Parts: sequence; C-alpha cells; structure tokens
Amino acid sequence: MAEAKKVLLAVNASHNLGLEVDEGLVGGAAIDACGTALPEETFAKCEAAQAILLGAVGGPKWDALPPAERPEKAGLLAIRSRLDLFGNLRPALLYPQLANASSLKPELVAGLDILIVRELTGGIYFGQPRGIRELENGERQGYNTYVYSESEIRRIGKVAFELAQKRGGRLCSVDKANVLEVTMLWREIMQDLAKDYPDVELSHMYVDNAAMQLIRAPKQFDVMVTGNMFGDILSDAAAMLTGSIGMLPSASLDVNGRGMYEPCHGSAPDIAGQGIANPLATILSVAMMLRYSFAEPEAAQAIEDAVSKVLDQGLRTGDIFSEGCQKVSTVEMGEAVLSAL
Amino acid sequence: MAEAKKVLLAVNASHNLGLEVDEGLVGGAAIDACGTALPEETFAKCEAAQAILLGAVGGPKWDALPPAERPEKAGLLAIRSRLDLFGNLRPALLYPQLANASSLKPELVAGLDILIVRELTGGIYFGQPRGIRELENGERQGYNTYVYSESEIRRIGKVAFELAQKRGGRLCSVDKANVLEVTMLWREIMQDLAKDYPDVELSHMYVDNAAMQLIRAPKQFDVMVTGNMFGDILSDAAAMLTGSIGMLPSASLDVNGRGMYEPCHGSAPDIAGQGIANPLATILSVAMMLRYSFAEPEAAQAIEDAVSKVLDQGLRTGDIFSEGCQKVSTVEMGEAVLSAL
Ligand SMILES: CC(C)[C@H](C(=O)O)[C@@H](O)C(=O)O
Ligand SMILES: CC(C)[C@H](C(=O)O)[C@@H](O)C(=O)O
Repeated sequence: MAEAKKVLLAVNASHNLGLEVDEGLVGGAAIDACGTALPEETFAKCEAAQAILLGAVGGPKWDALPPAERPEKAGLLAIRSRLDLFGNLRPALLYPQLANASSLKPELVAGLDILIVRELTGGIYFGQPRGIRELENGERQGYNTYVYSESEIRRIGKVAFELAQKRGGRLCSVDKANVLEVTMLWREIMQDLAKDYPDVELSHMYVDNAAMQLIRAPKQFDVMVTGNMFGDILSDAAAMLTGSIGMLPSASLDVNGRGMYEPCHGSAPDIAGQGIANPLATILSVAMMLRYSFAEPEAAQAIEDAVSKVLDQGLRTGDIFSEGCQKVSTVEMGEAVLSAL
Repeated sequence: MAEAKKVLLAVNASHNLGLEVDEGLVGGAAIDACGTALPEETFAKCEAAQAILLGAVGGPKWDALPPAERPEKAGLLAIRSRLDLFGNLRPALLYPQLANASSLKPELVAGLDILIVRELTGGIYFGQPRGIRELENGERQGYNTYVYSESEIRRIGKVAFELAQKRGGRLCSVDKANVLEVTMLWREIMQDLAKDYPDVELSHMYVDNAAMQLIRAPKQFDVMVTGNMFGDILSDAAAMLTGSIGMLPSASLDVNGRGMYEPCHGSAPDIAGQGIANPLATILSVAMMLRYSFAEPEAAQAIEDAVSKVLDQGLRTGDIFSEGCQKVSTVEMGEAVLSAL
C-alpha cells in the first residue's frame, strides 16, 4: 500500500488530477488500534470518497475472533455491502513478460485476457437466515442461504453485458441451473437481458464445467459473469492461470461509479513484514481506479506503462521471479515504477 | 456402458466372481421409454443390488423439462439421495502414458495422485427450503439452503480420514469458514475428528485458495474432503488437471459399502452416438466397484492392468489422442481391453 500511495501521489501531481487523498485503518490494523475492523471514522471517509484503495485484510492474528468481528467480515465485506459495491471486476490478464510464470503450457495461456464479473453484495455471502442452531436431537446444524432477486441479477447482468460490448462481445454466464433454483432464475434473467444486447453473444456454463474449461482452454472466454460464491472461486482460479496473481488488480463498483479498488491477492500473512511482497497489483489497482472512478484514462495508462517498463527491465519480486531476472524488494519495485513514471 | 458391461462379464467369468448382472433404464433413456427419469422398477433393482454401475445422464433433449423431472435431479440425484450414497470418492490420477494430455506443465503434474472426497447427499444440493418465490414488491427471488448437521459432517470426515490413513496420511479440508457459518461448523467437526486420527495430518483451506492451489501446485495434495457443491467444482478441476477426464472413475458409497460407480465425465451429448466416446472411465468404474463393493482386488487389478496395457499399446480415443498414437473407436477400445484381459 505504501508503494501504491507513492505512485498515486506522483500521478496526481504530474497529471494535475487534483485528487485529495485521505487514509483510514481497516481490518486487523483497525482491530489492533480501535477494537473494530471498520471504525466509523474510516467508514465515514469511505462514504465521503469517490474511490477507495484497499489493502488486503486478514491474518492468523485475528482468526480466533468471533467470525462476525474478523477483518474479512467486519471489514472487507462490511464496506462492500454498506456501500453497495455490487459489481466486482476481476481481470485475468497474462503479462507477456511473465508468460513462463503460468503453470499452464505457454500456448494455452499466451495472450490470455479474461474479465470475470462477480456479483459482490448478494448471494450466499449475505443471505439470511444463517447461523448454527441446535436441532431437536441435540446436534448442531450450520446453515446459510443462497438468495438472489431478479433486480440483483439484472443489475450485475447489465454491467457484464456492457463490458462484453466494449471487449470481445462474448459473455459466459456461470451457474448451477441443473441443481440450484436460485441459479435457474439467474439463467432466466440473463437470457432475458440478452435481448437488449444483440451484439453480445451469451452462453451459459455450469460452474463445475467452467472450472474445468478454465484449466483446459481458458482462451475460449472473454467476459464471465457469475454470483458471489462462484465468482470468488472462479476468479481466483482464473487469476492463478496467469501465474501473476501478484499483478492483478480488481474493482468493486456501485451504480454511480463509486468504487473500491484492491489487489486480487490476499494479505499473504506468511510473508508480511519482510519487505518482499509484490506491490504491482495494488499499484495497478490505482490505475484501475483512475480509469473507472475518475475517468482519467491517460493517468491510468501512464501507470500501466510504467509497470510494463519495469517488467521489461527484468525487475521481479520473489513471487514472479524467474532465472535471468533481477530480484527486488517491495520498496525497490515501487521506486522503479516511480522512476519509470 | 456397453464396453464396460463386456469387461464386467468377462472378469466375472474368468475370476469366478459369481456376480449377477441386471439392467435398468435411468435418465433420458428412461424418460423416453417410461416417462420418468427413475422408474420404480429401476430403483427396486438398485435397492436390491450391492453395487450400481451408472452411465452418465442428461442432454439437451431433456433440458426443456421442469428441473425436478430432468435426468440430473430426478435420476442421478434421486438415486444418490434415496440410497444414502453420501461418500463420493473422486480420484484425480495422472496416467503416465497420458502425461502430455494435461494442460499443465509436465513437471507440475507428473505422478499426480489426488483423492477428492465429496459429501454427496447433503449440503446445498438437497437443503430446504428452496425454490423461486414472489417478493412483496412483485419481483421474484430464487433461494437455496446450504445446510450440514454435525453427524453429516462427521460421517464424511471419517471416510476421508480413513482413506488418508491408507494413502499419504495428509488430509486437506476445504471450506469457506471466513464467510459461511455452515462451513465454520464443518471446520470445527473436522478438527474434532482429527483427535481420533493422530497419524493423519489435517489442514484447512478456503475454497477459493484451494481452486488456486490446484492450478499452482496440485501435487501438494493427498486427500481433500469437502461438501457437495465445493466438491462438485474442485473434483472437476482436479480431474481436468490430469488431462484424462475420460479416464477417471468415481465411487459413491453408503455406510455399508453399497456403492454406485460412474465415470467422472458427463454424458458428452456433443459426441453421443458417434462411436467415439472413451469407454475407459466406465471400465475403470467397474474395477473400482469390484474393489470397494465386492472386495475383489485381484479382479479389479486385472482390469486396471488391462487398461494400462492398451495405453502402452498406443491405443487412444479422440479425447486422449496425441501424435504417434493410434486413434480407435469406443468399441475398438473396449475390444482391446477385453483382449488384454
Ligand atoms: C477475504 C474473503 C472474505 C474474500 C471473499 O471471499 O470475497 C476474498 O476471498 C475475495 O475474493 O475478495
Ligand atoms: C449432473 C450433476 C447434477 C452432477 C452434480 O452436480 O453432482 C455432476 O456434475 C456430478 O458432479 O456428478
């Protein structure tokens, strides 16, 4: 986050963006400092802002807390839900400079460019009722509810169709309509929406098959749209296909273009504090933010070009390192992007 | 199925197994002939049997039927549920002869041997309430319930721990305990069970991370255990890693060793009737059946050896074909296995 902030401030100045930058604590850091994962002061700042840049949350230190108080639920999911950031865009893009980092054979992933559109404020993540109850026979039972209304499906569908229009014109909707009623409704609404987008080719795929197809032949996909839980799973799989999950940004948007931007990767507690994390996904999240929430494509492009340049220079953090490259620290990578800017 | 039946009858004779083989219609074929995907006559035969060999069900011809009448729900899921076949074993095994068929780099999958244990009669597949209802504002809402009781988790956990004991001694339980209450209970019960299996090393992984890790470094896994929906997704992904999904059998067991055996692949309606489907997954399902439901490991081994032999001979159906091999039809592959037997 420190490196991304430097880049943001640099571009803010060089491109005269006039953005005001404020900061707040969230997740584990907020629990440690204020006793809660999303202090109202932080949330007020989020509400007042046009865009939020989020560092990954969570770690073993806070895993013993009651689930509802942990960084994930009380921090990340709370912001997504309270700000109605329902439209989650997760690109899975293979950087040509990192082609060898993929675990898939190069010919299967060369040029890979998938966009996963995940519904982010509904589905089983937020469905009620939920909990753990005691049954009559004395044993406990855990339960969650997977629920979507027509309007929830329609609004994420629209986001996906519109993005497909601007990209390759193909949209694959992922569901489990052969088993789950909620996804039968999902499929029906997507089919209905398709009438408004005659230039987009809509297809449907069951989630189990989608997981297989991502591994078998990922380049068959352009835009994929799916619910919160399936999107969580498939977007991580798709990101990993690129071998560069440390490189991938994401956006979570509301209906008005307010957005939260975060790296696709998690908080990686195993390497926290060692100065070796890859800052590029967060830096690229800044670029995504400038493009989607501030309509500043040139500033966004400048950042993306700078990232591409440091990759061309052979600079690599450990996660994307390969023979013949130069291994750098988090700060060195950030500084290199600044210089390239 | 025709080829698998020939193999079963041949081994039955050569190994004096004394098995009685009966047949019944299920799925689309049963709908066409009897108007229902699981005729009571067929179910009675299943109930009377120690083991069931199932051909994949479903296809576009029956997709227009109401969901509850389709081959998947009314046929396959009905048998699983009514016979309480809760323990689904899905091996993901890389055949050395097919090493190049994987989309992953050879060094990442050479020797891959994962066993996914999927709970098959509970979870969101069968949870109540479910359906599509009208909300007060007039729009419709789809809903399903993801539910597991302690005893359901415990019995599938036991199956997984016992299998891990007989294999590499490592069990990874997959959940989404950072979000879903039902899987918090899942994790707790798995931890509790672990006390009874000190020789098994239990780990936990979130489902999104598991999907990533399967792609990044699949050989880190020995046995994985998870619920019905996550198991559906992850087992297909794992199977596809091997590049030989046309080769993989599966077993679905009740508490007494009664089992249903079926290929991991689906009905592949796109190639149905062309005589080119790979019969080996169904043939290997016969072997799995002999091993698990009839305790006839030698007969099972004979079939597995025969399959290995035809692969050594370079015979391949289209799905596993590669340069330098001999492309054969479904029947030719079946006949080759018979000869090798
Ligand atoms: C941390 C977790 C709650 C979160 C999610 O499941 O949505 C993460 O996996 C993600 O994908 O952003
Ligand atoms: C056909 C379908 C209902 C079934 C399932 O989802 O269980 C299949 O995908 C499987 O994995 O056996």
